[in-house]
Amino acid sequence: MNRRTFLGSVAGGAGLAAAAVPGIDAARMQELLTSLSVFGRPAGGTFASGVSRVGYSDADIAGRRFVVSLMEAAGARVRVDAAGNIFADRAGAVPSLPPVLFGSHIDSVPNGGNFDGDLGSLAAVEILRVLQTNRVVTRRPLTAVIWACEEATFAGASLNGSRAAAGKLVAGEMQHVSGGMVKAEAIRRIGGDPARIERARIARGAYHAYLELHIEQGGTLARDGVPVGIVDGIVAVDRYEAVVTGVANHAGTTPMADRQDALLAASELALAVREVVRGEAGAQVGTVGHMEVSPNAANVIPGEVRMSIELRDLSEAKLERLMEKIRGRAAGIARESRTEIRLTHKVHNEAAGAAVEMQRAIGAAAGKLRLDTRHLPSGAGHDAQMMATLMPMGMIFVPSARGISHSPKELTSWADCANGANVLLESVLGLAGWG
Amino acid sequence: MNRRTFLGSVAGGAGLAAAAVPGIDAARMQELLTSLSVFGRPAGGTFASGVSRVGYSDADIAGRRFVVSLMEAAGARVRVDAAGNIFADRAGAVPSLPPVLFGSHIDSVPNGGNFDGDLGSLAAVEILRVLQTNRVVTRRPLTAVIWACEEATFAGASLNGSRAAAGKLVAGEMQHVSGGMVKAEAIRRIGGDPARIERARIARGAYHAYLELHIEQGGTLARDGVPVGIVDGIVAVDRYEAVVTGVANHAGTTPMADRQDALLAASELALAVREVVRGEAGAQVGTVGHMEVSPNAANVIPGEVRMSIELRDLSEAKLERLMEKIRGRAAGIARESRTEIRLTHKVHNEAAGAAVEMQRAIGAAAGKLRLDTRHLPSGAGHDAQMMATLMPMGMIFVPSARGISHSPKELTSWADCANGANVLLESVLGLAGWG
Repeated sequence: MNRRTFLGSVAGGAGLAAAAVPGIDAARMQELLTSLSVFGRPAGGTFASGVSRVGYSDADIAGRRFVVSLMEAAGARVRVDAAGNIFADRAGAVPSLPPVLFGSHIDSVPNGGNFDGDLGSLAAVEILRVLQTNRVVTRRPLTAVIWACEEATFAGASLNGSRAAAGKLVAGEMQHVSGGMVKAEAIRRIGGDPARIERARIARGAYHAYLELHIEQGGTLARDGVPVGIVDGIVAVDRYEAVVTGVANHAGTTPMADRQDALLAASELALAVREVVRGEAGAQVGTVGHMEVSPNAANVIPGEVRMSIELRDLSEAKLERLMEKIRGRAAGIARESRTEIRLTHKVHNEAAGAAVEMQRAIGAAAGKLRLDTRHLPSGAGHDAQMMATLMPMGMIFVPSARGISHSPKELTSWADCANGANVLLESVLGLAGWG
Repeated sequence: MNRRTFLGSVAGGAGLAAAAVPGIDAARMQELLTSLSVFGRPAGGTFASGVSRVGYSDADIAGRRFVVSLMEAAGARVRVDAAGNIFADRAGAVPSLPPVLFGSHIDSVPNGGNFDGDLGSLAAVEILRVLQTNRVVTRRPLTAVIWACEEATFAGASLNGSRAAAGKLVAGEMQHVSGGMVKAEAIRRIGGDPARIERARIARGAYHAYLELHIEQGGTLARDGVPVGIVDGIVAVDRYEAVVTGVANHAGTTPMADRQDALLAASELALAVREVVRGEAGAQVGTVGHMEVSPNAANVIPGEVRMSIELRDLSEAKLERLMEKIRGRAAGIARESRTEIRLTHKVHNEAAGAAVEMQRAIGAAAGKLRLDTRHLPSGAGHDAQMMATLMPMGMIFVPSARGISHSPKELTSWADCANGANVLLESVLGLAGWG
């Protein structure tokens, strides 16, 4: 994609004349994403080898340093909060107005890809640079943010930085241990202050709105050739553990009719989850992703199976309704198989709606760029869902090739990266006002 | 059960007058089984704590020493072959006749019970003692045997001593490693000679017949109150590995219709195995006992499942027919789920029929003792199946409470132990002839 110019938004910039701001081109996005990709790259690997930049790790710290250098080069004032979140502030024409906040994360899962989080983070920093280069002063101040450790680490907790900002940390979380390190120490490593972690909380009204650009991590935009997704919300997640208890016995000497086989009951339950989830119209998903069989020997009838059941949808009422049906099916399966099935609710993540005015602002930005859009839910969790508890939130999705994510095979074309960055730029300008 | 006398069999003792041999009582079987149970008993445990007397271990070596002392006290000549099998020879009236061979094993699975193998071994040794005490000389010589390491150890191989005796060791088996020890070294520990392992082979015609007393390890005799089972054969075993390959993907962002979920396909396959196995009349069994899910995380759609499929029946033709049906079902499941299912044949154990004349001899022995009998297959493997390749083989089963085996909860009443020992004694007398 060639470098080109387009008209800045006039929304929010009432009374000010619109002027041209140069867009962000594909080559620049390639340069930025490739530069960041070296921090956590496997030894001897290439960009295609993906990245292991786990939150709080040495690679994460090196990557953060790189991003801070970009922020400083863009003339922003950089600060790190008590949770280790990095903020880059840029002054606006009206300093008393709450700033527009936008960003993402740069930490990855182990053996992850180079787009999840990185794209939204680098686009946010690039916007600061483009505005500085072109001497654009927006009406509202702007703040780009890199959230600390979005992916799951200590005790499986994710959205670590943004949860601290939203005041959603759980009791004792600073004492959680992973890989021999206490979480408080991990946060200190990246410049945070775990003893005063509550200072990371963002007050309501402190910012005008939050925007995040991210890869879809699903395959629908790529499959249908739609360059921009407007997220209408981040789904709620309910996670359950099912423990199926039968009787372990000799696989040779126990007649078929006498068996109380925990794995057969678990198999029926896994299929029932799919059947229930597909039994209603809508975009809800249900997954059995984890299963442990005991004693797990070819010549022993399984006596116990532990399995996960995860349900996701924008509607929490629908999730409860689906789970009621699954409970009913589990009871029937237990009765017929003479096993016991216990279901325990382990995780509940609330749904987070994107504000209608934010969806409209993103739609207007894409319209100016003549990019087709589609509204879709986010099936994955994002820092944006924490910000939705504090301020109007909007999310921009770009296509993920074949929907692959959390893998070195994660791929978004440079053109799609630039499209997303430009929709973010245009949306920020629209929300902050300029002229 | 009180000590009592009964008439010895005249079968095979043609022309000799029948005389009384005292039977084996329940208190004596309790004493013997309790004495052996201390070798490998968990620290601080009781008889009910079960036993870990794994083949070639220190506990096994101590238990073998105890059994050898009983053999010697019974006046037998004790020898250990190149595989570590222990033989106790007792002279007969006609030394040129091939001896009757009878015995079992004293090694256990880790955390096993005190009856599997121990009962048949101690009954065999007790028979030598009873005959010596009562100065009974049988026509044929007698040999009691304790087979080395019947349970699975190195590379999952079982029937280790009896396979060596039957010439069924596999290439390189002496070099297999378990727990840091090479199998050859393990065999040396128990007095074997791995460099000359082929010397353990028993020639056809070397023995007249083989008898083994064992607990059923299934629940049918106990449930129906039948004290003696006459085994009509040891089932064939076919074991397959199924590898189901789908596509691992994000559990939140991948629509239900787009999934290629390896665990759902594996669940359908496990249920299909049961359906196919139950679709024909007969005692065949089929089990999915082992399953490994990858990547096995609650928030990732499973990309691969490895699972075992095990089929057992007396008829190998039936096993092949069942597997053909399972292959057909697997192909259909793979097609519909857009997964790949590869089936690999991993284990084939041939069926071993009990000789009809041996079944008749056991039936006659039980009849003299006025004990009800039932013919049944053995769903579990036994050293007897190796002997069946060399000579007429017969097996006597006694009830297992609730069918539990390979567990400290393994239980056979002392009365049932004594009944089994007496049927073995009477069968040995019948086959060897005496008077």
